[in-house]
Amino acid sequence: MINRDHTVIFIMGTSGTGKSTIGKLLSKELSLPFFDGDDFHSKEHIQKMASGVSLDDDDRFGWLTRLNELAKNQLITNNCIIACSALKEKYRDLLSNGIEKNVKWVFLNGSIDQVHERLKNREPHFMPITLLKSQFDIIEAPNNALQIDIGLSPEEIVHLIKEEFLNKAVFGLIGLGVMGKSLSLNLAKNGFKISIYNRHVSGLEENVALNFKKEYDVLSDALPFDELEGFVNSLQKPRKIMLMVNAGNAIDMVIENIIPYLSEGDILIDGGNSNYIHTKERFDYLKSKKIHFIGAGVSGGEEGALNGPSIMPGGDKDIYKVVQPFLETIAAKDENNLPCSAYIGNEGSGHFVKMVHNGIEYVEMQLLAEVLSILKATGNNLAQISTILKSWKLGSDSYLLDITIKILRKKDGEDWLIDKIMDKAGNKGTGNWATIAAAQLGVPSTLIASALFARYTSFYKEDRINLQKKYGKEHIGLHLDLLNDEVLNAYQFSRIINHYQGFNLISEAAKTYKWDLNLSEIARIWTNGCIIKSDLMRTMVAILKETDNILIDESFVKQIKSLKPSANHVISQCIMNELAIPCFSEAVNFLNNFSTANSTANLIQAQRDYFGAHTYQRIDDDTEKFYHTDWK
Amino acid sequence: MINRDHTVIFIMGTSGTGKSTIGKLLSKELSLPFFDGDDFHSKEHIQKMASGVSLDDDDRFGWLTRLNELAKNQLITNNCIIACSALKEKYRDLLSNGIEKNVKWVFLNGSIDQVHERLKNREPHFMPITLLKSQFDIIEAPNNALQIDIGLSPEEIVHLIKEEFLNKAVFGLIGLGVMGKSLSLNLAKNGFKISIYNRHVSGLEENVALNFKKEYDVLSDALPFDELEGFVNSLQKPRKIMLMVNAGNAIDMVIENIIPYLSEGDILIDGGNSNYIHTKERFDYLKSKKIHFIGAGVSGGEEGALNGPSIMPGGDKDIYKVVQPFLETIAAKDENNLPCSAYIGNEGSGHFVKMVHNGIEYVEMQLLAEVLSILKATGNNLAQISTILKSWKLGSDSYLLDITIKILRKKDGEDWLIDKIMDKAGNKGTGNWATIAAAQLGVPSTLIASALFARYTSFYKEDRINLQKKYGKEHIGLHLDLLNDEVLNAYQFSRIINHYQGFNLISEAAKTYKWDLNLSEIARIWTNGCIIKSDLMRTMVAILKETDNILIDESFVKQIKSLKPSANHVISQCIMNELAIPCFSEAVNFLNNFSTANSTANLIQAQRDYFGAHTYQRIDDDTEKFYHTDWK
Repeated sequence: MINRDHTVIFIMGTSGTGKSTIGKLLSKELSLPFFDGDDFHSKEHIQKMASGVSLDDDDRFGWLTRLNELAKNQLITNNCIIACSALKEKYRDLLSNGIEKNVKWVFLNGSIDQVHERLKNREPHFMPITLLKSQFDIIEAPNNALQIDIGLSPEEIVHLIKEEFLNKAVFGLIGLGVMGKSLSLNLAKNGFKISIYNRHVSGLEENVALNFKKEYDVLSDALPFDELEGFVNSLQKPRKIMLMVNAGNAIDMVIENIIPYLSEGDILIDGGNSNYIHTKERFDYLKSKKIHFIGAGVSGGEEGALNGPSIMPGGDKDIYKVVQPFLETIAAKDENNLPCSAYIGNEGSGHFVKMVHNGIEYVEMQLLAEVLSILKATGNNLAQISTILKSWKLGSDSYLLDITIKILRKKDGEDWLIDKIMDKAGNKGTGNWATIAAAQLGVPSTLIASALFARYTSFYKEDRINLQKKYGKEHIGLHLDLLNDEVLNAYQFSRIINHYQGFNLISEAAKTYKWDLNLSEIARIWTNGCIIKSDLMRTMVAILKETDNILIDESFVKQIKSLKPSANHVISQCIMNELAIPCFSEAVNFLNNFSTANSTANLIQAQRDYFGAHTYQRIDDDTEKFYHTDWK
Repeated sequence: MINRDHTVIFIMGTSGTGKSTIGKLLSKELSLPFFDGDDFHSKEHIQKMASGVSLDDDDRFGWLTRLNELAKNQLITNNCIIACSALKEKYRDLLSNGIEKNVKWVFLNGSIDQVHERLKNREPHFMPITLLKSQFDIIEAPNNALQIDIGLSPEEIVHLIKEEFLNKAVFGLIGLGVMGKSLSLNLAKNGFKISIYNRHVSGLEENVALNFKKEYDVLSDALPFDELEGFVNSLQKPRKIMLMVNAGNAIDMVIENIIPYLSEGDILIDGGNSNYIHTKERFDYLKSKKIHFIGAGVSGGEEGALNGPSIMPGGDKDIYKVVQPFLETIAAKDENNLPCSAYIGNEGSGHFVKMVHNGIEYVEMQLLAEVLSILKATGNNLAQISTILKSWKLGSDSYLLDITIKILRKKDGEDWLIDKIMDKAGNKGTGNWATIAAAQLGVPSTLIASALFARYTSFYKEDRINLQKKYGKEHIGLHLDLLNDEVLNAYQFSRIINHYQGFNLISEAAKTYKWDLNLSEIARIWTNGCIIKSDLMRTMVAILKETDNILIDESFVKQIKSLKPSANHVISQCIMNELAIPCFSEAVNFLNNFSTANSTANLIQAQRDYFGAHTYQRIDDDTEKFYHTDWK
């Protein structure tokens, strides 16, 4: 009867709001068993309350746990309805513990005057009116309930509840591009009744949602729309709507267009690659309209979105809890079967973390491109290279290594497809933003910048052709003298530096923006579902519990020390042979610089003081006082 | 009598505005010779006009040139007053040609009705009234004139002119920090009567302008202020006011505070290191208030500001012309004695170019810091290193090399001062902005990013100390086996790449923002006065006339080819010996990448298409069509 099987409807509110009346009526209408929470109080509690003393939280714990068990038992075979005041968030957490996905909340809401009036006319009851005020004092309005005004008649209220729960969808999705479609299928596959929306653009995007629904059996229950009002009205309140549209103006336009149809407390989730600064701005803007906003990074590409992406939601934690059951259900699962979705932190932190994810991804991709250059230059053909890379999967496996092997083996007729692909690497903004964020935050994310600029350089195709002629270089057939294992070691070394820099960028941003982030948890949700999942990422989960700086972890120190000589050799040989390996070089230079206790940056300070009187500090003065010298 | 000796007052306006009357009256009051331009027309012209035919520009050329010669001759011994209609900017250009600094304009301004009324009552004159309308059709209001309404009586007008020219200052300067003071002294030293302003902050900044004036004889004529209204009123119209305050909010505050006192057509010049995007915004904002705005980069530090900086002004070209005499006078002079100040382009282009200047500077400084590391590691002490660097001045001289030598020789008691300086390199925003601009514009400015991140890395002093222990590195006494000339070659090589990248960033920004920039001229104004002046910069002036890409210039190709093997050797040796040389490495990697006709960026495109369906182009399809492959 309820559109999602195995559902418990909790009817909540203070004494005197009519929970039992509504529960019973609804029970009859829906043919579902009804339980009145009050019947599950112990005798001691009933006496306590009758004597005018409120229950304390310890008293309530047993009671709420009993109701939670009741709900769980019912769910095995049945839907059911339970009335329970559930005034605080933590009570509701107890009630829904372990069955978050199966719970619906109805909040019967009235003013203290309204309720007082009703209680005066009420049959004798163990709850004295004197306790009413204390209930209103502690009530925490739920973020995830259908709120109904008790001024309505019981019949009207029950009608509203039926309307909402019988026919409406539980989750909405806007934008049916590659990612939006995949997430929709993922949600539907997991049993959620969804509403899907795609704009109407005459001649270009017509009946997109409807046609998409027709294409897949799993969407038989989904509600398709190409106009926003109907879409919004088709959703249970508070509405949970995920936006999968292009970052930038498109997001703002959708937000502007949808606001008139939303109600207070509805939740928008931006699942695109939005800039974290804009996410913060949108969060604040929507807050002023009493709409909640979650900026959620989603990684995994088309396949991940369909079968389980890694999800990085940021915003208010309370609001995250409302959408948590959805996100955790559709997310990938880690090796312990935990969802690869976790609350990241406030404001735009989810999108920031996703941006750094993509920055790390840029570097991982660039390193593989450099590996390909080197292995070509050491005399291997593509078939040989894919075989070498396959051997690296043992111990250095990653999603990107895996798809690289598959790419190198793809044929285009008689030829290798890779040889036909234009060597101009595109970018969609996140690598660029990560570099900008590093520059703004004062963090040396050298590898992300290097990978970004390598892509930019690739765009100068004509210049590259001209300059190759001018400078007479030709790499193919160079026959660099390097062992494959040395190249693997250099690659692994550079990847560790890449991961250090990525997590350092997150860690520094957290300090600057006062986000309370859990680096280990971030690594954990990156162990599956996302583009940078890898063996290395899995080892980082434990280490990041101990330290923010993996470079001082003893196991990494040992590993780095054993890899570094190979990296040194590979890079110096490439330099001598004029083979471009910007990311590899930057990785060794970074560690060399970062492990130099006394650097020549003091010369830079002296120069700045010389020409600009910018002053400097002295190593023999702990007070951090600033000095200026007249150098002439 | 006039506050600047050798001044020509041109009184301009259409026929009938009273130029002769005012000129004669003013001549008497100031005891200066007066010349009526009309008396210098040839007989042919007078006849032509009397027959109702306007003079064409060819006719006018001879006449205006005669008046210009008259003014020049007078200036040798005298101030003088000349009346001349001078309706178009190009006529005024001819009149003031070569004596721009000595000219004052008075524009007698009235409506056509006003003038027509006056002409009707006027004694017979060779200019028929029929020509009046044609004058109003062509008149171009001057940006640089004292405008006076002809509704005033001749006495009032003469009084106004005397008020303005006898006592008021010609140029104002706001903000008496290191740079503001130096520029003030520079202006005063060059004979300009200036007004100087510094805010009043009780207990911190009191009587700054007054005390500064008292300190220097050359400022005896300067007008000091600590309140804005008096400061603004002390300046001749249109006011020319240079802001030398901190970039960011401080600039906006000063602008907000000063606007109420300004008049239409006044000119503000921001001489600080403002972000070019903010300069564009301020330009637009002030335009809406009818105030002109020039964003001028100023380089040279304290010494340059005092004795001649390099100046990079951007904004409206017409408005630049008004301040040009001031900026060119105080600027440094190049080897041909031309001023190191030139109009850059529209909007924020002046500040953009200054930002790139600073980016290049960051790299030049970082390269010298790396040189210092290498020369230490090859076993030299500081005295030996400064001797080596001194030998490099022959052929590779630069201001930064020069001060480095001086820095290395500076003692602190018995010790070298450099050894006492904390190796944490500060930054003030421009290197950071240059990196951000490169990322935003899609330009691979790898060296600027590398130099910026090297400074950021230097800030992790504690980590560096810890990691040196962990990784057991110690450079001093490494005794790298490198010839000094190899190091010099690597340095010169990297500098060429640095300069290529800097000019490329400017060139790409010009394309994006549609600025019409002259790279050669930019190089020229960087040959003196600024921090990056060098022998190399001087060679670039000619080459950038021929090409935007110095890497394809044959002389540079030859030079690079001869330097590159040393660079390869130096860098590979440093890598093998774990010496951090991020900028050097990035320079060789950049050229290696940039001269690779066919790179492995095709793998990145394949990966992007694999996981994100981002599509790719093919080398065998010139149509630039996008392809997608189902890779699985």
